[in-house]
Amino acid sequence: MKTPFQSVPGAIVAPQGFRAAGVFCDIKRLGTGKGSDKGPKRDLALIVSDAPAVAAGLFTTNQVCAAPVKVCLEHLRHGRARAIVANSGNANACTGPRGLRDARDMAATAARALGIAPAEVFVASTGRIGVPLPRPRVRAGIAAAAAELGRTPAHAAAAAEAILTSDTRPKQAAVEFRLSGRPVRLGGICKGAGMIQPGLSLTGRRPPARAPHATMLAFLTTDAAVPAPVLRAALAQAVARSFNRITVDGDMSTNDTVLLLANGLAGNPPAALRPPEGRDRTVFQAALDLVCLSLAHQIVRDGEGVTRFVTVRVSGARTDAEADRAARAVANSALVKTSWYGGDPNWGRIMDALGYSAARVDEARVDIGYRAPGARTILWSLRRGRPTPVPFADLCAAVAGPEFELHIRLHLGQGAAVIYAADLTTAYVEFNKGDVTNPAALGG
Amino acid sequence: MKTPFQSVPGAIVAPQGFRAAGVFCDIKRLGTGKGSDKGPKRDLALIVSDAPAVAAGLFTTNQVCAAPVKVCLEHLRHGRARAIVANSGNANACTGPRGLRDARDMAATAARALGIAPAEVFVASTGRIGVPLPRPRVRAGIAAAAAELGRTPAHAAAAAEAILTSDTRPKQAAVEFRLSGRPVRLGGICKGAGMIQPGLSLTGRRPPARAPHATMLAFLTTDAAVPAPVLRAALAQAVARSFNRITVDGDMSTNDTVLLLANGLAGNPPAALRPPEGRDRTVFQAALDLVCLSLAHQIVRDGEGVTRFVTVRVSGARTDAEADRAARAVANSALVKTSWYGGDPNWGRIMDALGYSAARVDEARVDIGYRAPGARTILWSLRRGRPTPVPFADLCAAVAGPEFELHIRLHLGQGAAVIYAADLTTAYVEFNKGDVTNPAALGG
Repeated sequence: MKTPFQSVPGAIVAPQGFRAAGVFCDIKRLGTGKGSDKGPKRDLALIVSDAPAVAAGLFTTNQVCAAPVKVCLEHLRHGRARAIVANSGNANACTGPRGLRDARDMAATAARALGIAPAEVFVASTGRIGVPLPRPRVRAGIAAAAAELGRTPAHAAAAAEAILTSDTRPKQAAVEFRLSGRPVRLGGICKGAGMIQPGLSLTGRRPPARAPHATMLAFLTTDAAVPAPVLRAALAQAVARSFNRITVDGDMSTNDTVLLLANGLAGNPPAALRPPEGRDRTVFQAALDLVCLSLAHQIVRDGEGVTRFVTVRVSGARTDAEADRAARAVANSALVKTSWYGGDPNWGRIMDALGYSAARVDEARVDIGYRAPGARTILWSLRRGRPTPVPFADLCAAVAGPEFELHIRLHLGQGAAVIYAADLTTAYVEFNKGDVTNPAALGG
Repeated sequence: MKTPFQSVPGAIVAPQGFRAAGVFCDIKRLGTGKGSDKGPKRDLALIVSDAPAVAAGLFTTNQVCAAPVKVCLEHLRHGRARAIVANSGNANACTGPRGLRDARDMAATAARALGIAPAEVFVASTGRIGVPLPRPRVRAGIAAAAAELGRTPAHAAAAAEAILTSDTRPKQAAVEFRLSGRPVRLGGICKGAGMIQPGLSLTGRRPPARAPHATMLAFLTTDAAVPAPVLRAALAQAVARSFNRITVDGDMSTNDTVLLLANGLAGNPPAALRPPEGRDRTVFQAALDLVCLSLAHQIVRDGEGVTRFVTVRVSGARTDAEADRAARAVANSALVKTSWYGGDPNWGRIMDALGYSAARVDEARVDIGYRAPGARTILWSLRRGRPTPVPFADLCAAVAGPEFELHIRLHLGQGAAVIYAADLTTAYVEFNKGDVTNPAALGG
C-alpha cells in the first residue's frame, strides 16, 4: 500500500503558488562582505504566496518579546497573509520603540516591493539581542530578495540558509498527500541551534500553569484550502507535539515564531476540513504533525555542540503535566546532559533530577531504561527503584550512539510526556562563551 | 572598636569539647590504597562532642532522599547528639532497604566505638548514587577514626578533607564572640563542588511554593548553650541566607545536609537567647550567619570547573519570592553562565532569562548593571530597558575578574533576593562527562 504522505523536494516552495529567496545584506555588519571561501552566509529570507493565504502563528511566551513578534501578533488579527520576511544576525529584541518601528518598516518595505498591504506581511528576526537593526541594509536586502524570488528547490534552500544563525545546516521538509482526492502539499523550513526550549502559544501570552520553555523560527506553507479556525487549531496541536517538546539548553528565546500560510491553490473542498472532523481534517493534521516533528528533530540534532539526540519518554506520572515537568527536569539537568555527552548511563543523576522536579515521584516505584535505535527491547537499568542485573557495559552500549531513547516509568498514574533533548558538550560552552575582543562575532 | 567576631583557627574543633578525625578506608574501592603521591584522599570523617549537645539539622527537599538523610531525620526527633559520622565516595542514595540498614549500621558502629547511643549519632554520605556502601570498610574506617580523634586544627582539617568529593580544597571557618560576657566559639566545615543548588528544610519535606533547588554537606559546632527551639530557628534562618542562596549547576542533590551541634560548654546563660530576643540571640544569629555564609561562598568559589563567582542581586520585584525566581532563572541559564565564562557582559541573555522566569517582568522598566569588586559604583548597561552609553569595553572590564556583582532592578515592587552563582565552563563539562571505561572514577 502506498503511504499517504510522500516526501517531496522544495520545502516551502513545494506547494503551488509559493516563491522564495535568500540573500546577503550584511545585517551583522561584517564589513568586507566576505565571510568565507564560499562567500558570506545569506541573512535575509523572503517567502511569498501568489494568492492571498489564510495565516496562523504561534509565538514565544517569554515576557521579553521581540519587536517582530509584536508586529506578527498585530498582523495576525487580519488572519490573512501574502509574505514572510525574516532576517538572521540581529534579533531586534530589547530595542524599544525604535525596534518596533524597524520591524514595521521591514513589513512595509516588503509590502511595497511586492505590491501588497503591510498587514499581509509577517516579520521575524534572530540573532544578537539589544542591537538596533541596520535599517538601510535590511531595506536593500528586501529589494534584492524580491528581485530574486523563485519556485525552485534552490530558492527554498537559499531562504532556509538565510534564517540560520549558529546552525550548521539548513532544515527543510515537505510532503504531498491528498485531501478529498486532490493532491496537496505542505512544506517548511526552520532554524534553531541555541536558546532552544520553545514554549509557543497562539497569543504570545503565557497560559496559566505553563511548563517552562531558543530562538527557533519555523515557516510553513501549504496549498491546501483550510478554514482559518481549523488552520489555527491544527497548528497549535502540531506545535504542542513538536516544537514545544524540544530542548537544547533550556533557554526560551524572545523571538520564537512559527508561521503557517495556506493559500488554497490545491482546490480541495475546505468544508471537508471543518468540524465535525472528517477524514480530511485528520489527514491534514497528520501531514502538519509530520512536517513539524521532522523540523523540530532537525533543530535538536543540529543544536549548538550537540553530539547526542535523546528522546526522553516519561509515563505513569500522576498527570500529563507532571510527566512533562519530570521529563524537562531530566532533559535540562546539567549533570544528566554531561553524562549523556560522556556516554554514561548514569541513572543516579536521572533519579536526582526526577526527585527535585515538580512532579510527584516515589523512588521505590521508578523504572529507568535505555533503548538504542533499532533495538527491540528496552534495557532497564532500574526497576522499582532497584538496580537490575543488566551489565554496565550493556547499558553503555545502548547510549553510545548518536541517538537513543530514555524511558522513565513512574507508576503513579496515567500521565505521559515526551521531550526531545540533547547532550551538553564542551563545544556548546566554547561556542557560547563568545569572544569579547570581537563583539560583532558574539552570538545571541 | 574591636569587632565582635574574631576569626579563629580549628574550624569544628575551635569550640570547647569537640574532637575530630579524618581517615582513609577506601570507600570507592580504589584497591591499591595509593591514590596519589600524597597517598589516598581521606574518605571518612568523625566529629564528636565530649558533652551531650543540642542538635539542629536541615536536609534536602529532593523527593529522592538518601538513606543517611532519613536516619538523621529519625535521630533528630531526640534533639540531642554526640557525634557525626560522614563518608565521601558513595552517596548511599537509591540503595533501597539495604542502604537504610547500612546508614543505621554507620551510626551504630560509631556509637559502639564512642560508648554512646546510636540515636546520638548523625550520619551523612556523598558520592556516586546507587552503589551499595562497602560496610566492612566503613566499619574499619569508623574504628580508625575513633582512635585518631583529636582537638588540633590538623584534626579538623583531616575531617574537612575526608568529606570532599570533586572539591579541590577543604572548606573551613570559625569565629569567637561573646554571649553575656562569656567567650563562645562557633565553627564549621563543608563540601560542595557539583550538584549544587540546595533547598534545605527542617523536615526534608518541601514547603509549599518552594523555589527549585548538590550534594552539599555542612557540619557546624558551637560551645554556646542554646535552647533547642532557638538553635533550630537560628539555623533555619542562617541556611536561608547562605546555603539556600547558592547555585553551581542548578541540580539539587539527594544528600544535602546541614547539622549544628551546640554542647553548652562555654557556660553562657541560655535564657539570654530565648525570645523575646535579647542581645545574645542577635549576636548568636550573626555569628551563625557569618560562618554559614563564609562556607556557602567557599562552595561556589570551588564549584566544579568554576572560574567566576557572581553575586546576582535582584530588587524591585513584586515579591521576594518573585525576586528569587528571577535571580535563579538568570543564575541557572546555560547561556548566561557561558557568557560569564567568556567575560561577556551579555545583558541580552539576562533579559531573555528574566523574561521566561516565573517572576513578573516589564522589559521597559528593567535596569541591568555590573560592579567589579572594590568599584564604588555600579556600571549600568541597561536602564529602563534601554542600553546606556557606557562603553562595551568598560562593561567587559567590570566582569573580567574572578568575582563581580550583577545588579538587576525590576521597578515593580519591593521584592529582593540575592543568589551566589558560578559560570559554566568547559572544565565542568569535561569533569562531569566522566569516563565510562573506568566506572570507579565516575562521579555523583
